[in-house]
Amino acid sequence: MYRSTRNLQRFSADLSKLWAAQRSSSLRNICPAPGVQLRPLRMASSESFRIERDTFGELKVPSDKYYGAQTVRSTMNFKIGGATERMPIQVIKAFGILKKAAADVNKDYGLDPKIADAIIKAADEVAAGKLDDHFPLVVWQTGSGTQTNMNVNEVISNRAIEILGGKLGSKDPVHPNDHVNKSQSSNDTFPTAMHIAAAKEVHEVVLPGLQTLHDALAAKAQQFKDIIKIGRTHTQDAVPLSLGQEFGGYVQQVKYSIERVKAPMPRVYELAAGGTAVGTGLNTRIGFAEKVADKVAALTGLPFVTAANKFEALAAHDALVELSGALNTVAVSMMKIANDIRFLGSGPRSGLGELILPENEPGSSIMPGKVNPTQCEAMTMVAAQVMGNHVAVTVGGSNGHFELNVFKPMIIKNVLNSARLLGDASVSFTNNCVVGIEANTERINKLMNESLMLVTALNPHIGYDKAAAIAKTAHKEGSTLKATAVKLGFLTEEQFEQWVRPQDMLGPK
Amino acid sequence: MYRSTRNLQRFSADLSKLWAAQRSSSLRNICPAPGVQLRPLRMASSESFRIERDTFGELKVPSDKYYGAQTVRSTMNFKIGGATERMPIQVIKAFGILKKAAADVNKDYGLDPKIADAIIKAADEVAAGKLDDHFPLVVWQTGSGTQTNMNVNEVISNRAIEILGGKLGSKDPVHPNDHVNKSQSSNDTFPTAMHIAAAKEVHEVVLPGLQTLHDALAAKAQQFKDIIKIGRTHTQDAVPLSLGQEFGGYVQQVKYSIERVKAPMPRVYELAAGGTAVGTGLNTRIGFAEKVADKVAALTGLPFVTAANKFEALAAHDALVELSGALNTVAVSMMKIANDIRFLGSGPRSGLGELILPENEPGSSIMPGKVNPTQCEAMTMVAAQVMGNHVAVTVGGSNGHFELNVFKPMIIKNVLNSARLLGDASVSFTNNCVVGIEANTERINKLMNESLMLVTALNPHIGYDKAAAIAKTAHKEGSTLKATAVKLGFLTEEQFEQWVRPQDMLGPK
Amino acid sequence: MYRSTRNLQRFSADLSKLWAAQRSSSLRNICPAPGVQLRPLRMASSESFRIERDTFGELKVPSDKYYGAQTVRSTMNFKIGGATERMPIQVIKAFGILKKAAADVNKDYGLDPKIADAIIKAADEVAAGKLDDHFPLVVWQTGSGTQTNMNVNEVISNRAIEILGGKLGSKDPVHPNDHVNKSQSSNDTFPTAMHIAAAKEVHEVVLPGLQTLHDALAAKAQQFKDIIKIGRTHTQDAVPLSLGQEFGGYVQQVKYSIERVKAPMPRVYELAAGGTAVGTGLNTRIGFAEKVADKVAALTGLPFVTAANKFEALAAHDALVELSGALNTVAVSMMKIANDIRFLGSGPRSGLGELILPENEPGSSIMPGKVNPTQCEAMTMVAAQVMGNHVAVTVGGSNGHFELNVFKPMIIKNVLNSARLLGDASVSFTNNCVVGIEANTERINKLMNESLMLVTALNPHIGYDKAAAIAKTAHKEGSTLKATAVKLGFLTEEQFEQWVRPQDMLGPK
Amino acid sequence: MYRSTRNLQRFSADLSKLWAAQRSSSLRNICPAPGVQLRPLRMASSESFRIERDTFGELKVPSDKYYGAQTVRSTMNFKIGGATERMPIQVIKAFGILKKAAADVNKDYGLDPKIADAIIKAADEVAAGKLDDHFPLVVWQTGSGTQTNMNVNEVISNRAIEILGGKLGSKDPVHPNDHVNKSQSSNDTFPTAMHIAAAKEVHEVVLPGLQTLHDALAAKAQQFKDIIKIGRTHTQDAVPLSLGQEFGGYVQQVKYSIERVKAPMPRVYELAAGGTAVGTGLNTRIGFAEKVADKVAALTGLPFVTAANKFEALAAHDALVELSGALNTVAVSMMKIANDIRFLGSGPRSGLGELILPENEPGSSIMPGKVNPTQCEAMTMVAAQVMGNHVAVTVGGSNGHFELNVFKPMIIKNVLNSARLLGDASVSFTNNCVVGIEANTERINKLMNESLMLVTALNPHIGYDKAAAIAKTAHKEGSTLKATAVKLGFLTEEQFEQWVRPQDMLGPK
Repeated sequence: MYRSTRNLQRFSADLSKLWAAQRSSSLRNICPAPGVQLRPLRMASSESFRIERDTFGELKVPSDKYYGAQTVRSTMNFKIGGATERMPIQVIKAFGILKKAAADVNKDYGLDPKIADAIIKAADEVAAGKLDDHFPLVVWQTGSGTQTNMNVNEVISNRAIEILGGKLGSKDPVHPNDHVNKSQSSNDTFPTAMHIAAAKEVHEVVLPGLQTLHDALAAKAQQFKDIIKIGRTHTQDAVPLSLGQEFGGYVQQVKYSIERVKAPMPRVYELAAGGTAVGTGLNTRIGFAEKVADKVAALTGLPFVTAANKFEALAAHDALVELSGALNTVAVSMMKIANDIRFLGSGPRSGLGELILPENEPGSSIMPGKVNPTQCEAMTMVAAQVMGNHVAVTVGGSNGHFELNVFKPMIIKNVLNSARLLGDASVSFTNNCVVGIEANTERINKLMNESLMLVTALNPHIGYDKAAAIAKTAHKEGSTLKATAVKLGFLTEEQFEQWVRPQDMLGPK
Repeated sequence: MYRSTRNLQRFSADLSKLWAAQRSSSLRNICPAPGVQLRPLRMASSESFRIERDTFGELKVPSDKYYGAQTVRSTMNFKIGGATERMPIQVIKAFGILKKAAADVNKDYGLDPKIADAIIKAADEVAAGKLDDHFPLVVWQTGSGTQTNMNVNEVISNRAIEILGGKLGSKDPVHPNDHVNKSQSSNDTFPTAMHIAAAKEVHEVVLPGLQTLHDALAAKAQQFKDIIKIGRTHTQDAVPLSLGQEFGGYVQQVKYSIERVKAPMPRVYELAAGGTAVGTGLNTRIGFAEKVADKVAALTGLPFVTAANKFEALAAHDALVELSGALNTVAVSMMKIANDIRFLGSGPRSGLGELILPENEPGSSIMPGKVNPTQCEAMTMVAAQVMGNHVAVTVGGSNGHFELNVFKPMIIKNVLNSARLLGDASVSFTNNCVVGIEANTERINKLMNESLMLVTALNPHIGYDKAAAIAKTAHKEGSTLKATAVKLGFLTEEQFEQWVRPQDMLGPK
Repeated sequence: MYRSTRNLQRFSADLSKLWAAQRSSSLRNICPAPGVQLRPLRMASSESFRIERDTFGELKVPSDKYYGAQTVRSTMNFKIGGATERMPIQVIKAFGILKKAAADVNKDYGLDPKIADAIIKAADEVAAGKLDDHFPLVVWQTGSGTQTNMNVNEVISNRAIEILGGKLGSKDPVHPNDHVNKSQSSNDTFPTAMHIAAAKEVHEVVLPGLQTLHDALAAKAQQFKDIIKIGRTHTQDAVPLSLGQEFGGYVQQVKYSIERVKAPMPRVYELAAGGTAVGTGLNTRIGFAEKVADKVAALTGLPFVTAANKFEALAAHDALVELSGALNTVAVSMMKIANDIRFLGSGPRSGLGELILPENEPGSSIMPGKVNPTQCEAMTMVAAQVMGNHVAVTVGGSNGHFELNVFKPMIIKNVLNSARLLGDASVSFTNNCVVGIEANTERINKLMNESLMLVTALNPHIGYDKAAAIAKTAHKEGSTLKATAVKLGFLTEEQFEQWVRPQDMLGPK
Repeated sequence: MYRSTRNLQRFSADLSKLWAAQRSSSLRNICPAPGVQLRPLRMASSESFRIERDTFGELKVPSDKYYGAQTVRSTMNFKIGGATERMPIQVIKAFGILKKAAADVNKDYGLDPKIADAIIKAADEVAAGKLDDHFPLVVWQTGSGTQTNMNVNEVISNRAIEILGGKLGSKDPVHPNDHVNKSQSSNDTFPTAMHIAAAKEVHEVVLPGLQTLHDALAAKAQQFKDIIKIGRTHTQDAVPLSLGQEFGGYVQQVKYSIERVKAPMPRVYELAAGGTAVGTGLNTRIGFAEKVADKVAALTGLPFVTAANKFEALAAHDALVELSGALNTVAVSMMKIANDIRFLGSGPRSGLGELILPENEPGSSIMPGKVNPTQCEAMTMVAAQVMGNHVAVTVGGSNGHFELNVFKPMIIKNVLNSARLLGDASVSFTNNCVVGIEANTERINKLMNESLMLVTALNPHIGYDKAAAIAKTAHKEGSTLKATAVKLGFLTEEQFEQWVRPQDMLGPK
């Protein structure tokens, strides 16, 4: 029955079906899923449901969905934000990995291999993104993520039942709680999935993205190493440096960004699995925690371990606050770099004009040379978003009480969002901007040669007072240092050219 | 050709088609749209494209889409974040309203009525959400939102062309720039759409949501007005108040929340339209700005006016920062209320237990009476998110330069997200929690009667020292005040009951 | 005994005396007050103490101080942060106003006029800043501010005792609790003082500061109204506007800043006084709340009223979160304005160079014309601080529980800090930067005339294609539009000068 | 002439003298230093000045101050915030260390040993806090901290002149720029001082504070290891754990806090010294950077090294943003721990009441047993402040441009404030709260025994259905599990006691 339906279509379709099918007692008509209610439910008549029960009564479950009553009930109780607010798919996939690992370990502890293997197969499909249509829940649910764990258990059990030839919704022969959730609790599985998802996103998106950017900037620093330009401090003209040195600063920022993102990972690799409801590990088995962590490590290729302290792992999410802090620092670096590049590339006539940025889309049709630094803009917007996400994570992380922090879905949503945006934006910024940056050497040289700061090089030769007189006169008259120096009779043109050499001003003596 | 395709399906389908169809030179294989690349592009062979050109060359545009080359190019240049990161649909709909208003006004200034009317009809469809599938762009694009304005122009022109029997992509007889964008610039239309979208969301989601919550809390305050309970300051026992008074504090917070959200609206009602590229109104007509604002006001029923200063309206988004600040204050109130309710409802045996919260989903099957305050959790997570969003808006708002703030898409995304989450969560919290709250009067009375704070009522009768002695003894021995007072011989049981009356401690004398 | 000792000297002297005099059992030797422990306590031998008792035992109180045992105990228990972290003096002064008002009202309700008048006189001295040396407590104390209320009660009672010829520390004839704190509780007085302090700071510092800035910017907008310059969007060259129009945008931002700061004031004018311990007004008298608010209004000239809901007024500080949000929006505006001015004033040779900023301090001695925009830097640092303060206020405001928010000292510290910094920085920025800004008209004209954007004016005359050809050629060849146009034979020099007139591009037609 | 004047008195005295002595042209009368202008300047007549000149004219410098014209001018130009806003004294002391190290290295490069040694002696006094009175400048000055570097140069040169028998203000024989600032620039010295100050504060305040807290919590975890209590998830009753396990979670949080603070230190140990104006090291000598870092390391005992990339070290402060992020995570942990402790200690009758917190100050005199958790309140206020400070640092860190970040003073102020508050509060919280916490075992046992969650232990013995029936009945009837179980006839009292053993529920099997 599994169909490769189109990704994302699921959400609005599901919700409209569900909400139409269930009680219609909403106090207001505004539909949380944008646009959904404006659409005529033309297909409603042709859609079929199966009836499931939970302790609250009967519920209609779409017959082509693997999820069950608890998932449906959550969609009814949490109409907050609509489709774009669903649980990040990375968390669902991480659950697939975890449930597979747990089933494998449970087999060691006596779970019927036939059932275990069906669970493993179904969990594999979840991890591979094949069942994305079956996870309609939003982030804004219970703060423990329990309903998403239930959703996962329902989907895997039903898919496993299907694999074994059973009837969807029968809980036989694969029970969502007794089998899929065996030795687990929402309270330890959800934080485990949070850490798996975050670690994978760091390794698959953030670090490759930053490395891509690093390498491109390093190549530019090398390419520009002999281009000497005016420096700017306080946004004002200052002594020279090379364009390569300037880009070298950015390279260092990105290099350290990579170190910063890696620093919290030892704590992110710690998995809560095995802590069950409050961290004690009640109802699980000695060794379960360690074995699950080993399996997850094997499945992901990342060095996951069981958490040193399960109480901390359930009650706090400091490790993710810490990771979010690292991403916040990366955002700070990105804001600096992107800001510099757009200002250095400003123009074509009335800006600083030292860099020529690649043109990626038609700018003003009438205005050749106006290249809007759109990649810088996307990057700086991403940076602002990451800073905001970090505050949300901080607030959520600080508000845990007793044995369980209940801001879990919100925390992981923001961490994953920051990770994805920074990683993607780094690649986009690299490919569509950095690699194509060229130096406007003509402009750079012009500004360099017009600069008054070069006068400092004359101090050892003609003394501070005469040098200052040259600069003051040149500034007042709008002339060049060389012309002024010669005019004032302090030195010859040859001497000026011999003594005022920007290339000698790029380092200590 | 317009098909009522399923909402949201569009996105992943579009992107996979587009990215497959265009250059495949991506530097990395990680696909920003979760899951998209894992899906076999089975339908690719049957999909058809039309060829469009921009100044950069040819592009394949899906033949069933109204958007054109500029939109396609943006999807290629900004692979950041995927489907959940698309421009909020409320912005698209607001553009529909604006483009309709502009076409209507342009008719007054000489635009061919046939063209104008076709634009109006197409814009109406955009405003009604009928063309949602045709807006694939993400937030993380150019910071002016130019590409979304282009996307809107392309969709409306092509749909208008279709209405008039023309050929998609021909720009004839309705040109996206010359006609749909007439007298407009991205720089003034995007902020106009931001304000329309924000104002509508405030009126359609935030204010009704807060009013719903207000009314439910007010009803509870009335219902609970005669229930006297122990007060708590510093989380510690304090003198009594009524449960109605306690809820009255929440009512006041929500009442003021409504005032706070309304306060910035005069500035949100100001529309930038008519400012064109830098705020001067170059290339538009005298009166255009005022007329467009009037039309938008008429179409929305909200008191929009033309911005007092167009330079400010393009270069800064202080009005939305201010609105975001109001939502942040609302979030602060919500956090307080939801926290109180979950603590007052904690138990069933080992918590404060004064409130009985409605049970909305099966809790622990083995643990009757354990009602997790899931609606409080959703609300407090929303509050944390809104606080984070506000920081993102603040950072974006502060980083505008010269004539244009280029954090526009990020700013409006966060404002709309905060608005939607707060509005939806208020309704969910009301319907699924507040309306069902009951007082556990037995527990409240027990705590009330056991309280040592009531001893303060004895001061006028037996003096401070004896009263203190009663309290100290009762605390030490774990006994009640009454029993201790009688045992110590300071007064009779009758006197105690006459003098220690919590109901007399609820106000000044 | 009252001596006009030097302001601020008090703090370190007090603490060092106190900490030396009391128990020396600190677990570590690091002194929270910077520098204090490094200083030899040479005067210790000559300093005298009086012995006071509280229920915990005896304490040494410096004999020249009006505070008593509870204040001393707080200094021992909260060694956090040192001198710079003391309770803002504005809160102390606001307490002076409140205590004066309360004593006056208490006289109506039967307080011995002799005692009341002595309290009023002492409270007046507190309000006037004459007793600043007697308030050593830091912000980081109990979250209700109780210890500061105690500190105030002790100082006023002892000073009143002194006025009446009594003995310090005797509590006779003026008792700190029974008389000075009569009909009050820390729980309602501290939030009352918070609101008084905040409202006064808004009126005395923020609004005058913003008005000063507004007027100076408005004068510049007028002065620069005829200077036409190149506009910049995306930091890139755009169509022209006048420098007066550009400054007009800033004027609008500051004008709205003033409105934004005023908007929350109706809720800040609400005073908690009369709510006593939990908001019920237990132990106070009917009418007390209203009368105190009236007195405070009369004493301050500000329209204070009694809070509509005392429960809300104690349990939440939404009004100050809201005010902080307004200051945050002002900070956003300030960041934009100061950033623009420093970039427009960048140079002298290699920047944008359109503005000439006043030189306030010696820059680089060798580098005439390098004027660092130091006032812009101070302002943007202030803006960043205010944004941070706002998050602290938001977190504190959201974490109240039950009948009392216990982040009060932290909240008011940050609100007052933001207010003071914004107000002071506005004045400094105005006086030391804005009033002295001059336009570099030569530079502005040069950039204006070199601009390629002016070509848009030719469209109606020679058509889009020829205009574009001119711009493209000019960009490619680095030539002017006029020269290129003539060279290409599309028009004459006279026609160019007639048609391309920036002054005609500043508004709609 | 050096007098050991009282710490902090300096500031207000200085400013009032200075502002009175200099131009009195302020546009408004509000004095930024609280209280200063209200004080009669009675001592003014007796105070003497020396006249110094800078390029702007003459200035009166107080004759008992070591600072000179540039410092005075800064006090006139930056009247923002007053005394509490001065540059953190830790930065001044760090400058003392740096200037000493630089003078020592300069001696190697040819600086006259007599001059160098006098500088070293004077710098030592600055580092030792002996000259604190001579640094009146506020944070809100130039964003490079140039004026504070000048202030330091002036003070050290004048003190060195005094040591060598010269005349203050003569710049002879020790010149502030030529000698004290030799081979340095504000642009590299200020960030160097920032890093030295931050690293010292981390080592002297933060880490010892956290270790103190860690050890106290660990001792409590050990002390409480055998006390079994009800767990709480979602604030609701859950399965049991030991109080030691619960505290063990806090211990882990603090243990990781220490790791988190250490993680960024390798990058904080990097010193910018040697980069001079833009990072190139112009005007300094090869080897100077490394030697200065070595000297600073030797003087502080901390592993400082020269920055790997000087351009990054001047233009960005990512390392301090990162450190601030670590402190933010620590704040998150502290908020959780302090919140838990105040809720677990709530009561005495109507709260959770599991912990007995030490009473540190008289609570309500009439209300024995009401112990307000004031240390928790101080700690949570500190946590909120640190979160706010972190946003300020983030905004400042992200807004650097080109070769110099100009939010330096604001950034270091906030980092040092966060460090100091967290370190101090950790010690205060430990000494005045944690070490004195006792378990209320009677209450803990009562809640434990009343809990319905223990029924889960019966599942293996009587099956899920009967167990659930027991729990449901007990909840409904308000009875204990044991009584209900026996009454329902499912088991005997002996069996209940044998099977329901909380001590067997504390771990996996």
